[in-house]
Amino acid sequence: MNTGVCYFPEHWDRQRWETDIERMAEAGIEYVRMAEFSWNRMEPEPGTYEFEWLKEAVDLVGDHGMQAVLCTPTATPPKWLVDEYPGIRQEERDGTPREFGSRRHYCFNSPEYRRESRRIIAEMVGNFAENESVAGWQTDNEFGCHDTTRCYCDDCASAFRTWLREKYGSIETLNEAWGNAFWSQEYSSFAEIDVPGPTPAQDQHHPSRLLDYDRFASDSVVEYNRLQTEILREANPDWFITHNFMSDFSDIDAFSVSEDLDFASWDCYPTLFSQRTSDTPDPASDAGSDYQRVGDPDMVGMNHALYRGVSEGPFWVMESQSGDIRAFPYSAEPADGMVRLWSHQAVAHGCDVVSYFRWRRCRFGQEQYWGGLNNYDGSPDRGLPEATDTARDFEKLPDLGAPSGDVAMLVDYESLWALETEPHTPEFDYFAHLRTYYRALRSRGVTVDLVSTSGKLSDYAAVVAPSLHLLDRGLAERLTEYVSDGGELLLTIRTAMKDEYHKLRDELAPGPLAEPLGARVEQHESLAPGLETRVSYDGESYEYRTWGEWLTADDATVVGRHETGVAEREPAIVRNDCGNGHVTYAGVWPEAELADAITTSLLERADVPFGERLPEFVRITERDGYTWVMNFKPDPIEIDPGNGTLVLGETTIGAHDLAVVGAPSHEIDVVEGV
Amino acid sequence: MNTGVCYFPEHWDRQRWETDIERMAEAGIEYVRMAEFSWNRMEPEPGTYEFEWLKEAVDLVGDHGMQAVLCTPTATPPKWLVDEYPGIRQEERDGTPREFGSRRHYCFNSPEYRRESRRIIAEMVGNFAENESVAGWQTDNEFGCHDTTRCYCDDCASAFRTWLREKYGSIETLNEAWGNAFWSQEYSSFAEIDVPGPTPAQDQHHPSRLLDYDRFASDSVVEYNRLQTEILREANPDWFITHNFMSDFSDIDAFSVSEDLDFASWDCYPTLFSQRTSDTPDPASDAGSDYQRVGDPDMVGMNHALYRGVSEGPFWVMESQSGDIRAFPYSAEPADGMVRLWSHQAVAHGCDVVSYFRWRRCRFGQEQYWGGLNNYDGSPDRGLPEATDTARDFEKLPDLGAPSGDVAMLVDYESLWALETEPHTPEFDYFAHLRTYYRALRSRGVTVDLVSTSGKLSDYAAVVAPSLHLLDRGLAERLTEYVSDGGELLLTIRTAMKDEYHKLRDELAPGPLAEPLGARVEQHESLAPGLETRVSYDGESYEYRTWGEWLTADDATVVGRHETGVAEREPAIVRNDCGNGHVTYAGVWPEAELADAITTSLLERADVPFGERLPEFVRITERDGYTWVMNFKPDPIEIDPGNGTLVLGETTIGAHDLAVVGAPSHEIDVVEGV
Amino acid sequence: MNTGVCYFPEHWDRQRWETDIERMAEAGIEYVRMAEFSWNRMEPEPGTYEFEWLKEAVDLVGDHGMQAVLCTPTATPPKWLVDEYPGIRQEERDGTPREFGSRRHYCFNSPEYRRESRRIIAEMVGNFAENESVAGWQTDNEFGCHDTTRCYCDDCASAFRTWLREKYGSIETLNEAWGNAFWSQEYSSFAEIDVPGPTPAQDQHHPSRLLDYDRFASDSVVEYNRLQTEILREANPDWFITHNFMSDFSDIDAFSVSEDLDFASWDCYPTLFSQRTSDTPDPASDAGSDYQRVGDPDMVGMNHALYRGVSEGPFWVMESQSGDIRAFPYSAEPADGMVRLWSHQAVAHGCDVVSYFRWRRCRFGQEQYWGGLNNYDGSPDRGLPEATDTARDFEKLPDLGAPSGDVAMLVDYESLWALETEPHTPEFDYFAHLRTYYRALRSRGVTVDLVSTSGKLSDYAAVVAPSLHLLDRGLAERLTEYVSDGGELLLTIRTAMKDEYHKLRDELAPGPLAEPLGARVEQHESLAPGLETRVSYDGESYEYRTWGEWLTADDATVVGRHETGVAEREPAIVRNDCGNGHVTYAGVWPEAELADAITTSLLERADVPFGERLPEFVRITERDGYTWVMNFKPDPIEIDPGNGTLVLGETTIGAHDLAVVGAPSHEIDVVEGV
Repeated sequence: MNTGVCYFPEHWDRQRWETDIERMAEAGIEYVRMAEFSWNRMEPEPGTYEFEWLKEAVDLVGDHGMQAVLCTPTATPPKWLVDEYPGIRQEERDGTPREFGSRRHYCFNSPEYRRESRRIIAEMVGNFAENESVAGWQTDNEFGCHDTTRCYCDDCASAFRTWLREKYGSIETLNEAWGNAFWSQEYSSFAEIDVPGPTPAQDQHHPSRLLDYDRFASDSVVEYNRLQTEILREANPDWFITHNFMSDFSDIDAFSVSEDLDFASWDCYPTLFSQRTSDTPDPASDAGSDYQRVGDPDMVGMNHALYRGVSEGPFWVMESQSGDIRAFPYSAEPADGMVRLWSHQAVAHGCDVVSYFRWRRCRFGQEQYWGGLNNYDGSPDRGLPEATDTARDFEKLPDLGAPSGDVAMLVDYESLWALETEPHTPEFDYFAHLRTYYRALRSRGVTVDLVSTSGKLSDYAAVVAPSLHLLDRGLAERLTEYVSDGGELLLTIRTAMKDEYHKLRDELAPGPLAEPLGARVEQHESLAPGLETRVSYDGESYEYRTWGEWLTADDATVVGRHETGVAEREPAIVRNDCGNGHVTYAGVWPEAELADAITTSLLERADVPFGERLPEFVRITERDGYTWVMNFKPDPIEIDPGNGTLVLGETTIGAHDLAVVGAPSHEIDVVEGV
Repeated sequence: MNTGVCYFPEHWDRQRWETDIERMAEAGIEYVRMAEFSWNRMEPEPGTYEFEWLKEAVDLVGDHGMQAVLCTPTATPPKWLVDEYPGIRQEERDGTPREFGSRRHYCFNSPEYRRESRRIIAEMVGNFAENESVAGWQTDNEFGCHDTTRCYCDDCASAFRTWLREKYGSIETLNEAWGNAFWSQEYSSFAEIDVPGPTPAQDQHHPSRLLDYDRFASDSVVEYNRLQTEILREANPDWFITHNFMSDFSDIDAFSVSEDLDFASWDCYPTLFSQRTSDTPDPASDAGSDYQRVGDPDMVGMNHALYRGVSEGPFWVMESQSGDIRAFPYSAEPADGMVRLWSHQAVAHGCDVVSYFRWRRCRFGQEQYWGGLNNYDGSPDRGLPEATDTARDFEKLPDLGAPSGDVAMLVDYESLWALETEPHTPEFDYFAHLRTYYRALRSRGVTVDLVSTSGKLSDYAAVVAPSLHLLDRGLAERLTEYVSDGGELLLTIRTAMKDEYHKLRDELAPGPLAEPLGARVEQHESLAPGLETRVSYDGESYEYRTWGEWLTADDATVVGRHETGVAEREPAIVRNDCGNGHVTYAGVWPEAELADAITTSLLERADVPFGERLPEFVRITERDGYTWVMNFKPDPIEIDPGNGTLVLGETTIGAHDLAVVGAPSHEIDVVEGV
Repeated sequence: MNTGVCYFPEHWDRQRWETDIERMAEAGIEYVRMAEFSWNRMEPEPGTYEFEWLKEAVDLVGDHGMQAVLCTPTATPPKWLVDEYPGIRQEERDGTPREFGSRRHYCFNSPEYRRESRRIIAEMVGNFAENESVAGWQTDNEFGCHDTTRCYCDDCASAFRTWLREKYGSIETLNEAWGNAFWSQEYSSFAEIDVPGPTPAQDQHHPSRLLDYDRFASDSVVEYNRLQTEILREANPDWFITHNFMSDFSDIDAFSVSEDLDFASWDCYPTLFSQRTSDTPDPASDAGSDYQRVGDPDMVGMNHALYRGVSEGPFWVMESQSGDIRAFPYSAEPADGMVRLWSHQAVAHGCDVVSYFRWRRCRFGQEQYWGGLNNYDGSPDRGLPEATDTARDFEKLPDLGAPSGDVAMLVDYESLWALETEPHTPEFDYFAHLRTYYRALRSRGVTVDLVSTSGKLSDYAAVVAPSLHLLDRGLAERLTEYVSDGGELLLTIRTAMKDEYHKLRDELAPGPLAEPLGARVEQHESLAPGLETRVSYDGESYEYRTWGEWLTADDATVVGRHETGVAEREPAIVRNDCGNGHVTYAGVWPEAELADAITTSLLERADVPFGERLPEFVRITERDGYTWVMNFKPDPIEIDPGNGTLVLGETTIGAHDLAVVGAPSHEIDVVEGV
């Protein structure tokens, strides 16, 4: 495990570089990421290339015993390029072009931009293919940031038609697949199909059309990324290639993009995220105040787990928060210790390199309020000593494989997109729904792997599969087989209501899983907060929220019943024996107590060890036999490490501090309020 | 009284039709509405017609003893038509065209679309003119839905100029009528006048220009509807013709459109409406929870009364909610019994056919979350048994004429439009203001007729005329004559402040009614919730909201005075003897208690019998000598039917149930909380 | 001190003018403003001029012993002009043109509009240059109203390029000055630079580009105004020239525009303002109810002080609220007495003419809900008797010079614009931050002058300089010199963090003031309401809000320390001896108690006399030796005038009444709750 840092030599005088790079090395840093926004410095006018400055910077990094991570500079096409090819600009839904002046102002489907991207990357690569100080590459930067995945320009319209033709072959097949008999929406030819622009019924485009457009847009990013990786791999097959993804990001299927990468990395800003997700309290509320300075540990943790799953092993945090940032709407300073604690949280979850953003606060441009390890005058900022300590901590730890859990949680971007086109309540958020179960499992110290629907299920004692809204027969069969072979499967609301074209199925939900479940969903409803919503479960009464279903249990055992509303006394949670395993279906969105009851019961049946319920701001995470105990609270906690050795820290863990114990997580007891 | 259903044969395999239609007949259904969105199925390519499928469906309906209601398919022009004539698309205020992909993507003033509409309707009609299974027609579908009444395209600009030229004759007359001396807004010719696009002072276009634009837009719909009815009437004069209007719908004058119809129908979705109106509580609040499952009885009731008034007799509910729907933002399942109770509520208010939307939940397209009598797998959904019971109930009832009340409430779309251009407070909602008085009267069991300003006033013992903001001399004279002849007239805030051109009058409000009232409005104000707002009335103190006026009483008796604010001690409510009747003016927007006090006093003077005040979720409705007692509450109520016979139900009425008594409403006592 | 009125002869029949103007004279009015929206009446078709009507009106005003204030009519170009030159229209950021139909639909940089403006002004002036009844002119009307300062049309793009070329000389200088190395934003030529249109990262344009665009847009108004004043001055050098500015208006540097004016005037609508500023409570809240009827005295007062500073002496209120208006969202009637009290508040702050808007409520067009001294039927409205009393009051008062305070508050539009591009918290509002200190000083009866950063500092015993975010070396030196010479300087949060190009400085804040302060800002943070935020100061504990900084005190004395959060125990407020004076830095946005503690300490050191803390709705204001005691409360207060004579009013001051005492403000005691 190592640390890294993001550095922008183009922002500083040449004479400063040596000082900066020397101080990085002193701080224990091993990797320096550079060049992701510097196209214009490499090609200040069309066809005139200048790579010397970057070579110097890379060499300086190498001279100090570190390695460079270079980036393709395609996130920021220069003004001369935009002016020469105005068609590369993205267009908004109403046709307004997105102009030069920030970043990501290009369309993934622009043939001109693809050609220009190939050109600059080939030139750049030609200058570094032999350079031993370059460890690997990041493609572009944060694909899709600023809502740029979906573009509505003519190039996209053409590419969408091609994509549809390849998928459906004939327009009759498409009409049938989408169900275009509805509202006379049938097409006579692929040429008639446009990108989904403004239409009278706002946000009521045909859902099958929207879903295919979302798939197409994600595929366009996959293609564009592949265009880059092919050039890089050809130039030097030893380089690693990654891309820096974002948290809770919906628009791009990270699994698909990563098929062309060696591993995924992501950009982690906890105090920003805690203001963005529907399942952390509003920062302006009393409940939100703790999150202002530490972020939401499970929000961060679930994204670590996601990109570990995407990487199928260790991953990187390419940009790790190193201090106060330009968070929206508020930007509190992190608590003392958080830069180090977040770094440890990352490695505990399987990160191999924690790369801080950024070496020094930039003195100009859009991100002057985004802090770094050093302040804008060049003096160390609050994060630098913590980052230095972290590098020292990492030296004390052995090399560790990625964590591997006994419990898998399935992630399905297509179900996510489908649910976004028809949320049916403002409160439905796919990642928040996943996190309801993730939080419950993590509060018992259980390691959870987030895996794609094509992941190997048999590796897991239990599989949590929330809201698999679209479900093809192949996955249904694999899930059924998994259970028959003794697996424990938890399905939740809205599963398999739709087919792969986003149409209601012939049979009631959960469609092909109704048979193994031994039950069918009779009704569903979305519920405003005003209504009382409770279910019984295992003799207790619990609250739920947002969504309720009731089922007909043909063979299944009813383990939870509605206590309120129209569905009173109807089955809400059912379980069925299926071969050597069990399928459980939770027909409500549980509040935390019920989520805990459902998941601990699942863990018991699956024989997965778990501990006492942890406080909200305490988390324990096991990686390869070592367990991190992390205290995100402002008060100390006490732990009993059992038979484990303390590798880092003490049994009393102060505010925003941690300990690492050489023992599995369930052997460690946490005592709150010492 | 009968039931009907909306059916989409084009959504289902041909072999399913027979089963579906047979089961409709078994459920007691008499009418089947079809084809409103099926243009592309009738004309899959330009000039190639296919009507066989629809003929088969109509024949099947006839074979099972039911009748078909056909629709012109103009709400959804096919893609090939939009591509051939892109000019038919509506344009938004900023010029953005509204693209194909949902529905209603056409402009009412497009000459091309008018020609194409005539063509498809003529073809369609030619195929069904002799078909005895067709009872009548619905024109188009929900004119104006998705904010499509007002379009900003060039065709509309041209048509608007023609409309203005016809109305004003000369540009000088228009400049004078609108008052264009303000801000140098005079025009030199009609050619200079545009549709009201974006302008620097957002939402501050010239109000007279906006009002005429609103009138023009509504007239455009009237013309377009007439184009359709002319073809239908010529083809078969025996057919009835209707159109399905919407609830609380502001943009189109339903009285004018209906002059070309035999009767009006409307689409009734109570659990959707209760989330849309400013006078029902937010569903997310505690107070809103009851409304989530039953809707707002008075919101629904007032729309029944409106379309009865528009029909000048019995009307239809063309789409009646049959289960859970795609309501926004939330979609709770209706309480058990509501499908039947809503049906009875409709007939009690004068509906002759309750037609459920729809036979079966559609498996594709935009409305998959919109339920029907059958679930998406074809099995009966929750509503089907209730609809079947309803059909049986209706058989037990005699044929009844429309209800006719002793109290008229005047509805004036032009005043509504004028108030919308200058609401002067975010809380002013025309229909909500009407409903304040409607609720008060209905909570006393009184039948209220909603009638146009040209309605026959002498039929009524009392006339409630809320916010007749624009008032021409003709109506003023008719109102004065009505009162002189012994009528009881109640005027409310903002009456006759403006002339028919939306200009302030020469004289203070209520303008030409100031003389019969014997009082003038000196001042008005719009008030934020923070202020205390109370008036005295008849020795008691009452709260009001939103709007206050104070008057100078020349001849009138002051019956209410302000108790708060700048207006303290000034007259707020006045009454005047005028001939054999009285005029009352309520210069505040009353809260419920004051509305009750004002209206019961009106009823007493008018000698209209009324009962004790009913609970919020209990309503009694009289139709042609029979009275429905309807319990929208989750608890039973007890009634004393007096000398009336129970035609349906018992004296104890369960949750969401009803009874029908052969007696006038005021003879029946309701006892809450048995 | 005199009163005036705004009159629109073009709105009324010719025969009415005589009555109106005679009644104005009877009400004691001295000035009548006319013609600001009457271009089309002066030039009803291109090149055809009609000035007779206006000459008649001016003569009538003169005949009645009053004087006319004429306006250039450029705020409302007629339709024929817009049609002839469509390029004069403003464009929104996305390119949508702003159409005819309200006002201000022209671009300041349109060469065509500049030419047409010169033409109509020259023609108009030619008709009145010799007319002795014309006292002076108002240019245009409310520059920038309806968000019209910043336009995105091609004319603006060209003019922006010219402006940049003149400022920077070479594109290299601009690239360096802005810091365009960030995100590859370097330009190769000025021709490449566009106006800041839509870009992917919404609201994340380059801040230096935005700041220069804001400067350019303000300069464009300065230039356009100068174009007008040059014609006027040439025609008749005896005329005064003014412009009517608006309250808390951000987009235009009023100091710069006013360099071409004789004095500034502004348009004062207290009940509107109190609903618009972030530092008055929401009118819908309980706390907001008092403000609904009287407005916020300090909001109004600070704008009086600003435009007095802009005028460098007495100013006018060109439009003074005379009754109920079309306020948004609510429009309560002012309390009895407010029209007179607001008028006195204006003159107390240095206003010489209070001109009421308007003589009579207009019967047509956009502002029918905007009241005047007379109602729409021509009868006196509530304000007329109060305005008449005010004129009589003014006769009793001696001629007075402008107030002059001992305390200056610096206003810097460039810092304002810079902070708007990067607010870093939704709660940061520049004027509200200034008002925090203004309120504190005013609640002690102290006169505060709002002056530009080029103002003469040595005139003041104390200088409050809030958030001088951009600070050039010249100002830094003047401030340092001011303190060295014995001045008391108060700096606040965010001072001198940026250089004049909106880049972070080489050194920590407050940059060049760090040395006189003897301290540097180490950290800053923006804080959501949920967090506890307290500092100690002078032995007491105080609350702050929104923004916190902590400092390193090199030489300074720490007078306040953080008590909460990450910064606990760190310096929050510091003070340094510097020559004969002191510099204080307040590193938090204080709540009222702390603002009072900081400012009274400042006043004590500066030897500025001040009184007991006044209640929120009581204010005392001194002008030239006379002191107004103004009671904005609904309850009476008692004063002890000390040795002063009562020039107006009594020692008991009723609700919304006032007294004027011939004595300095600090000699007068106010006793609440008599």
